[in-house]
Amino acid sequence: MGKTGWKSEAKALKEKLARAKRRLRDLVGGEAPAEAPGKTKAAPPLSPLAPASFPDLPEIAGARFAVAAAGVRYAGRTDVMVATLAPGSTLAGVFTRSATRAASVLDAQAKIGRGLTAPDGAAIVVNSGNSNAFTGRAGVISVAEICAAARTAFGVPEGAVLTSSTGVIGEPLPHDRIADALGPMALRLDAGALAEAARAIMTTDTFPKGAAAEIATEGGTIRIAGIAKGSGMIAPDMATMLVYIFTDAAIAAPALQKIVAGAADRSFNCITVDGDTSTSDAVIVAATGQSRAAPLLDMRCADARAFADALGRVMRDLAWQVVRDGEGATKFVEVAVTGAADDSDAHRVAMAIANSPLVKTAIAGQDANWGRVVMAVGKSGAAADRDRLAIRFGPHVVAENGARAQGYDEAAVSAYMRAQDLVIGVDLGLGRGARTVWTCDLTHGYISINGDYRS
Amino acid sequence: MGKTGWKSEAKALKEKLARAKRRLRDLVGGEAPAEAPGKTKAAPPLSPLAPASFPDLPEIAGARFAVAAAGVRYAGRTDVMVATLAPGSTLAGVFTRSATRAASVLDAQAKIGRGLTAPDGAAIVVNSGNSNAFTGRAGVISVAEICAAARTAFGVPEGAVLTSSTGVIGEPLPHDRIADALGPMALRLDAGALAEAARAIMTTDTFPKGAAAEIATEGGTIRIAGIAKGSGMIAPDMATMLVYIFTDAAIAAPALQKIVAGAADRSFNCITVDGDTSTSDAVIVAATGQSRAAPLLDMRCADARAFADALGRVMRDLAWQVVRDGEGATKFVEVAVTGAADDSDAHRVAMAIANSPLVKTAIAGQDANWGRVVMAVGKSGAAADRDRLAIRFGPHVVAENGARAQGYDEAAVSAYMRAQDLVIGVDLGLGRGARTVWTCDLTHGYISINGDYRS
Repeated sequence: MGKTGWKSEAKALKEKLARAKRRLRDLVGGEAPAEAPGKTKAAPPLSPLAPASFPDLPEIAGARFAVAAAGVRYAGRTDVMVATLAPGSTLAGVFTRSATRAASVLDAQAKIGRGLTAPDGAAIVVNSGNSNAFTGRAGVISVAEICAAARTAFGVPEGAVLTSSTGVIGEPLPHDRIADALGPMALRLDAGALAEAARAIMTTDTFPKGAAAEIATEGGTIRIAGIAKGSGMIAPDMATMLVYIFTDAAIAAPALQKIVAGAADRSFNCITVDGDTSTSDAVIVAATGQSRAAPLLDMRCADARAFADALGRVMRDLAWQVVRDGEGATKFVEVAVTGAADDSDAHRVAMAIANSPLVKTAIAGQDANWGRVVMAVGKSGAAADRDRLAIRFGPHVVAENGARAQGYDEAAVSAYMRAQDLVIGVDLGLGRGARTVWTCDLTHGYISINGDYRS
Repeated sequence: MGKTGWKSEAKALKEKLARAKRRLRDLVGGEAPAEAPGKTKAAPPLSPLAPASFPDLPEIAGARFAVAAAGVRYAGRTDVMVATLAPGSTLAGVFTRSATRAASVLDAQAKIGRGLTAPDGAAIVVNSGNSNAFTGRAGVISVAEICAAARTAFGVPEGAVLTSSTGVIGEPLPHDRIADALGPMALRLDAGALAEAARAIMTTDTFPKGAAAEIATEGGTIRIAGIAKGSGMIAPDMATMLVYIFTDAAIAAPALQKIVAGAADRSFNCITVDGDTSTSDAVIVAATGQSRAAPLLDMRCADARAFADALGRVMRDLAWQVVRDGEGATKFVEVAVTGAADDSDAHRVAMAIANSPLVKTAIAGQDANWGRVVMAVGKSGAAADRDRLAIRFGPHVVAENGARAQGYDEAAVSAYMRAQDLVIGVDLGLGRGARTVWTCDLTHGYISINGDYRS
């Protein structure tokens, strides 16, 4: 072949390569084609649903934080965070219902019970990189060692030390590395370090998650600041959703526990990325009581209700951020179910839709495939009457009275499906039960993150 | 650039292109890169798990078949099949439990009841291309029109005409096209046309599905031949698993119904591709009674037990073929759960594993990620004790007594995961409950089939 022949072959090859690269990009959702496919997994790109910036979090009197790079599994990043709470703090928490809960969850759950009062102060120790889940007796010992080290470092009783671990399942936790890091961390506790803590607990998260609120009362301002990690109900190797919220409110532990449990049912228990449940999920809320506001003694008074509302908003904000960081997510989807026989049926229907791979792939494809919503309603197990069912995508009613809606405008609905934030509304036409849940779409990105060759 | 320069650039480009193509193959599971990506959806390639060939199906005395290209939705292929059953046949069936069942399902279910006896013969009419689901009153009329046309064409009472429809949801069924096809079909009914029927009912299936068995009895041979379609609990737009099995056994309808319901619980109710449930699933078994074998009157006698076993094997064979044609599947996975508190708990655990997106993506990635199996056990809701749990991949025990197994050989397990057929064994160590279910992996192919742009 002469020079011209090679030149034109090179040109043809370049075009083929460009086509193949375009197709690869389509398949993996924006990821550039890897030059050496398979073996290594690059850090996932920032979620397209990420908020523009991390919020300013107010300092919470009585709560201080520190982070460390203990080398639990990762190199070159922080992987341990500590929060210390002043004497007199109260703590509440909700945890995964998994039957294979990790040792740290069982320990924290036992200590919190129906709300934990900490007259001598409390500490929360969280590591990323290793979940200490399914590690048998060794896992229990690891938790005890970390709690003992926290007692020494922070001067709080072991009964008021709560731990969480997130990361690979089934590997022994190198608890010495965490325990050794705690002494030095005690020297640099800082009320302003909560944003750094949000980064230290990340695993496959593509952005740190924070939210805050303030409630003005006659006596003074109550502040709430929280952080979260989570990118799937359980991320690849790296399990778990973890949430830590701090407030200077003065509130008794049982009352706080009640508010947290209720708000979790309307936030963290209403989100799903893949329907999988972590062995380590934990939401812990600590109240230091150091606000100048009057103690919240009567939960029926206006200040207490304002506090519960604000805490609920912070929890919902963090829950939404977890969905927005869902593995491979390109769409944020609200599923609003009304007209169910009761709220519990509404929850079943909403979760059946939000967890359906066929609904979630249709959303990824920007396809107004309401037939798949009908299917999900049908399989939910909730009471439903096909001939009363109505379905809408955003403002567009696509089905009603058991058939396609009169005047269904496919072009308008298709245009709507291109939006990043979507609402699927379902009315069952049976009763007053209602529930809203949030999820994301199911994309090639999810498969790449969770299924591509690891070895 | 000189000739040598172009030559070496062409060589480098060729290598890059080959790498990109390899990566594409990894991503889409064997599909060649499409030249014009995006807009059009090519016919899916044959499943890598497809059997080598369609089996030889025996003729069943008293059962005849015909197919037609009625243009329900597809052009250039058959889309209607009819089976007629001789007078004296008995019929049994099991159906989807969806609350949004299609009109044909409701009609067939009412007619079969606890087993249908057809002294004047029976007919089964099935179309692909349109599921007649969620079509309201119009859907009920369509079923009635088809049944009336079948009565005219085949001379059987409408009470003995069963219909199924599979395909797009929510579009009015052009029932006239089906009704008009039936008369000509009556003229070409043929006992040997069952294989053609298997093709006429396909939607997104990549191969037709058939299975057969023969039971030798003193009086003569009993024959069973069946066909199925299905490629997901519900395929994209094209819903549904449909199964039709024919036998010349002489058996009373209630006894047949009992056998079919029991065998379905150990076959079709033990498979999952994506956990989604069709609005139209139907399994219908017809017995013509024309074998020379003695009627199966006492279900405790050896012949009746042999018949039930053989029918169960045919049903399991067809169920496996549906999994092997699962959308995007590259692995066939048996999940065998033992040691549960009871069989019902074993079923919950097995299905939680088989439906977990994280377990299924790990299998796609050939990753022995037993931590995800632990997670699925934990979320199943069944009684489980973390410290008694044992997990194996094929012959390799990876976890026992709540921790990683002693002597766990990662290299050997990784080598095992490369096989096409895999077994995940879980022993809960609690009781005698056991259940085995079958599923496939979750791949980029599933996302492409269900999520890529439709418009």
